[in-house]
Amino acid sequence: MAKRIGTHTIRLERPVSIIGFAAAGSRKEAQGPLGQYFDCINEDSSFGEKTWEKAESALQKCAVNKAIKKAGITPGDIDIMLAGDLLNQCIGSTYGARQMGIPYLGLYGACSTMAESLLLASLLTESGMANRCLAATSSHFCSAERQFRFPLEYGGVRTPSAQWTVTGAGACVTALQSGAPYVQEVTIGTIEDYGIKDINNMGAAMAPAAYATLTHYFQDTGKKAADFDLILTGDLGMVGSSLLYQLMDESGHSITGNHKDCGLLIYDRLQQDVHAGGSGCGCSASVLCAYILPQLKEGLLKDVLFLATGAMMSPTSVQQGESIPGIAHLLHLSHNFEKEESSC
Amino acid sequence: MAKRIGTHTIRLERPVSIIGFAAAGSRKEAQGPLGQYFDCINEDSSFGEKTWEKAESALQKCAVNKAIKKAGITPGDIDIMLAGDLLNQCIGSTYGARQMGIPYLGLYGACSTMAESLLLASLLTESGMANRCLAATSSHFCSAERQFRFPLEYGGVRTPSAQWTVTGAGACVTALQSGAPYVQEVTIGTIEDYGIKDINNMGAAMAPAAYATLTHYFQDTGKKAADFDLILTGDLGMVGSSLLYQLMDESGHSITGNHKDCGLLIYDRLQQDVHAGGSGCGCSASVLCAYILPQLKEGLLKDVLFLATGAMMSPTSVQQGESIPGIAHLLHLSHNFEKEESSC
Repeated sequence: MAKRIGTHTIRLERPVSIIGFAAAGSRKEAQGPLGQYFDCINEDSSFGEKTWEKAESALQKCAVNKAIKKAGITPGDIDIMLAGDLLNQCIGSTYGARQMGIPYLGLYGACSTMAESLLLASLLTESGMANRCLAATSSHFCSAERQFRFPLEYGGVRTPSAQWTVTGAGACVTALQSGAPYVQEVTIGTIEDYGIKDINNMGAAMAPAAYATLTHYFQDTGKKAADFDLILTGDLGMVGSSLLYQLMDESGHSITGNHKDCGLLIYDRLQQDVHAGGSGCGCSASVLCAYILPQLKEGLLKDVLFLATGAMMSPTSVQQGESIPGIAHLLHLSHNFEKEESSC
Repeated sequence: MAKRIGTHTIRLERPVSIIGFAAAGSRKEAQGPLGQYFDCINEDSSFGEKTWEKAESALQKCAVNKAIKKAGITPGDIDIMLAGDLLNQCIGSTYGARQMGIPYLGLYGACSTMAESLLLASLLTESGMANRCLAATSSHFCSAERQFRFPLEYGGVRTPSAQWTVTGAGACVTALQSGAPYVQEVTIGTIEDYGIKDINNMGAAMAPAAYATLTHYFQDTGKKAADFDLILTGDLGMVGSSLLYQLMDESGHSITGNHKDCGLLIYDRLQQDVHAGGSGCGCSASVLCAYILPQLKEGLLKDVLFLATGAMMSPTSVQQGESIPGIAHLLHLSHNFEKEESSC
């Protein structure tokens, strides 16, 4: 049975395997360096729907259906679905899941949702409360722009620190069985707020949360950065990543040697005009499902810390002069499942 | 250890007690029939804040702090907080929890959030993954009105089927120990959509979800309505409650004898001009924490089905002509903890 270690971390004692996973995206994602790894690409970002919000639901559904198919099961085999997105009242997920008939738990973790949904799915699976869980999330550039910033028609100019919301989705199916990749430990994040108020600098707002969660994980487990092939953050982008390096360096846990950020992997920043990198729930979700989980499955990567960060503000809170609280949830994903030797 | 029974239900095999619970409200709630049972009432619904959204955060914090105090612990004793609300990006909860330093999982379940957060808290507690969890939610009439309907200054006329969003919050602390009230079983809801498009008739949109979840629970457990002192829905109001009676009657599980709805308990409909009743995350949360849990603790109630319903639409989805999907999560709460005799 999973057990708490330290103050923020839970170690899984039974092997939870991610038995199916899939990533969906659109044209810009296809044109990026990871384009070839996506399971479903729809060049037309409307996904055949009349509104961007409905397009996002269709996009998430692509990833969900593909992940279920790759797991070799049917929707009826899923006991609990955990999902959320950036849209007001999380309609991307709700309307996407509407016809599936799967017991559903809605989450809101902003861009940390892939980690939040996958960690809860893993815990519910490990305890036997569910035989199979589905974790999913999505974001869409066009629905996010008009909700959080400007309608596309406005043609607003973007600052250098601004990030580009990924039109993408990821979905994972968990089960208690053998087969890489495994979920080894999870660390639930705390809300961190260093007083950043610039809505065009989400990376800076989220870096302190990534720092707090990584530090809690290292303290709780006694592990260090060098124990991992890869420390993968969600969407800190260029600005947030450098801030995280500074914070980690000062704490004595430098991660510069093995850190990558999904927001910097998914697009070619110079060619694709995305300024500080990609962002959105779909950023870390699609990079994880398209590019990282396959390598963990094959054993090309052995141990990865996946750390998705979320900025928890709303346009209303920003207009009211509030700063931007960040959160980061972490999963240690591995090729081999290692049970702790001395669990007493 | 908790185990699945049937297709949608999980039975807790170890005693999860709600060791602290509290309800907060404002003037209208104080003037209602349950006013005397609230733990904290602030006559001024601004809660000393400059905006309604900040007022909602302050309101939720009242309930959270009081529940922690009544549990005889400190915030540092909570391992995981699970919370959400109706506001875009759930800022009521995020900004309320910002300074607490507790590992935080954000949820979105609309008005079903009290049941969703409490069921997840119970499951994580029962499995030992957390020693103590905190489940919380809130709603505020003024923040909800301007976000979902009209700014208050507009003075929009309300239809007879419209409900009044409760300015209220509820919070529960769970721990694995003896002491009523207990969480006995939980049923996770599926998204149900009967095509209702009238945003002024949430009760009708949510009744099918309550029906589906109750039916799943009865099927999974073999229990019947008469086994409970009370079947308590969240905020179906007048219209939704009658629809639920019809649906349940047709399925052979009449609940008219022992059903009550939080939306009909919290206000005096005739005196308080709330049309079809109260609604909002804070409706079922505050009625549960102020009025029901104390009776379960004292043994005045022995077995209660608490069934909070949520309408998962957004103003955007409604403007786009979409129907309103509903969801309902259920907890069987009891004065005595009964372990199943023959668990094999």
